[in-house]
Amino acid sequence: MKLVRFGPRGAEKPGLIDDQGQVRDLSGHVPDIAGEWLDPARLQTLRSIAVEALPVVSGPQRMGVPVAGTRQFLAIGLNYRDHAEEAGMAVPPEPILFTKAVSCLQGPDDDVRRPRGAEKMDWEVELGIVIGKRAAYVEKDEAMAHVAGLVVCDDLSERSFQMERMGTWDKGKGCDTFGPVGPWLVTLDEVGDPQDLGMWLDVNGQRMQTGNTRTMIFDCATIVSYLSQFMVLLPGDIIATGTPPGVGMGKVPPVYLKEGDVVELGIDKLGTQRHVVRGWDAV
Amino acid sequence: MKLVRFGPRGAEKPGLIDDQGQVRDLSGHVPDIAGEWLDPARLQTLRSIAVEALPVVSGPQRMGVPVAGTRQFLAIGLNYRDHAEEAGMAVPPEPILFTKAVSCLQGPDDDVRRPRGAEKMDWEVELGIVIGKRAAYVEKDEAMAHVAGLVVCDDLSERSFQMERMGTWDKGKGCDTFGPVGPWLVTLDEVGDPQDLGMWLDVNGQRMQTGNTRTMIFDCATIVSYLSQFMVLLPGDIIATGTPPGVGMGKVPPVYLKEGDVVELGIDKLGTQRHVVRGWDAV
Repeated sequence: MKLVRFGPRGAEKPGLIDDQGQVRDLSGHVPDIAGEWLDPARLQTLRSIAVEALPVVSGPQRMGVPVAGTRQFLAIGLNYRDHAEEAGMAVPPEPILFTKAVSCLQGPDDDVRRPRGAEKMDWEVELGIVIGKRAAYVEKDEAMAHVAGLVVCDDLSERSFQMERMGTWDKGKGCDTFGPVGPWLVTLDEVGDPQDLGMWLDVNGQRMQTGNTRTMIFDCATIVSYLSQFMVLLPGDIIATGTPPGVGMGKVPPVYLKEGDVVELGIDKLGTQRHVVRGWDAV
Repeated sequence: MKLVRFGPRGAEKPGLIDDQGQVRDLSGHVPDIAGEWLDPARLQTLRSIAVEALPVVSGPQRMGVPVAGTRQFLAIGLNYRDHAEEAGMAVPPEPILFTKAVSCLQGPDDDVRRPRGAEKMDWEVELGIVIGKRAAYVEKDEAMAHVAGLVVCDDLSERSFQMERMGTWDKGKGCDTFGPVGPWLVTLDEVGDPQDLGMWLDVNGQRMQTGNTRTMIFDCATIVSYLSQFMVLLPGDIIATGTPPGVGMGKVPPVYLKEGDVVELGIDKLGTQRHVVRGWDAV
């Protein structure tokens, strides 16, 4: 299933994408794509709904984050072998964790904004894991049973805040609008192997990132299991799993986002995003 | 006002503490201490309620986190001048930000648990700021108008996860039960000057930490203003503002928490906590 949340910001309704690519309204069956409804067993019950009986949502729709009520937005750094090589950095012996502010979450095609004082705003296409049920001390072979599905994330980053403002990376990762997620939450059965998904990102039509989740250093199951040793993961939590080569900081010379730039990105089977860069004071 | 949430975990009700120290049930007036109800202007309207007409809650009550729906649990590192001196570390030129997992939040007197594999579990009494309304790019002189009130936090930390497991501190700060908060959310008018609050922490009756918020390097208004430059702060967000001297890691030799230890802590005007340390597999 491809689950979505469509409609104006703050008033999204749950839906799904049918085989013809149409949005169907799920709000008669599910209050929201959130909480207990993300449990893989509960998601399974949605399959019994006759899709053709669901109302078709006509006309173009804004897509929101395809999961509601996210309380933790975690991210793994330096998790692609080819990206580590590109950056000339050693492969980390265990996952590097940082945090994105939950308040930066937004729909896949919403405008993004350069923060005030930003000089080095960068892109990162990433596979996102959405937790489906509470996970604490989960072994690797049980980890994916705690996952609702996968999403596309753009882990937008202001490198000057991330690297030059003391302490953790968190200052440069959670700025308002820095967390476009979606368009779809795709259940695992529909994705197949999460470690064989092609991914790409363009800026103004020029290909910047090309990668495949098969070069991830720590795979999805390892990441979920690992993080669950350090904290309790909750339904709706999102984990961005790292980015392949081609970020702006890695270009020679570096290339950063400026107002008016158009960022497009996608991951096989998970859909695409398109967002325009605006100034920090844009409404 | 001293606001509380009392009752079994997950089923807390809103209340307040009257002048006699009794819990009064607020649930007839407020759905929860959360969201829009945290706006300082909205909190002000609660003052018109005749306290003596509120039902007295009789008998001992478990206290929960005195704010619900927290979506971001942020923390400032190395923010006390005397603690930096004790640690032999330079005073940071700007606040150091790290993150505690929201899933570690719990009531002030609930048992805490040593995580599996933990060897260096430590205490940190901290003043916590609870955000009352959305804050983005807030100037320092406006910052406290975005605050609902103050709380006691124990910023429990597993130093081996924090320092020896790659990357940010976040792995050692958000373990399950590592965020006791409360007992009260005290509104600013009742606190008076937030930069003149004595604070203390005992382990098994022995005084370990003694401090006062007047030795904070970055005061509450500066912290709220500063963080709001990097991310949008939301109602219910909690910011732990750093710890004074006397953490276990700083003792010679270091002292860490073990099962059965009793931790008690408090801050002037904000109440006290008492929690017992259990094993990671304790229910």
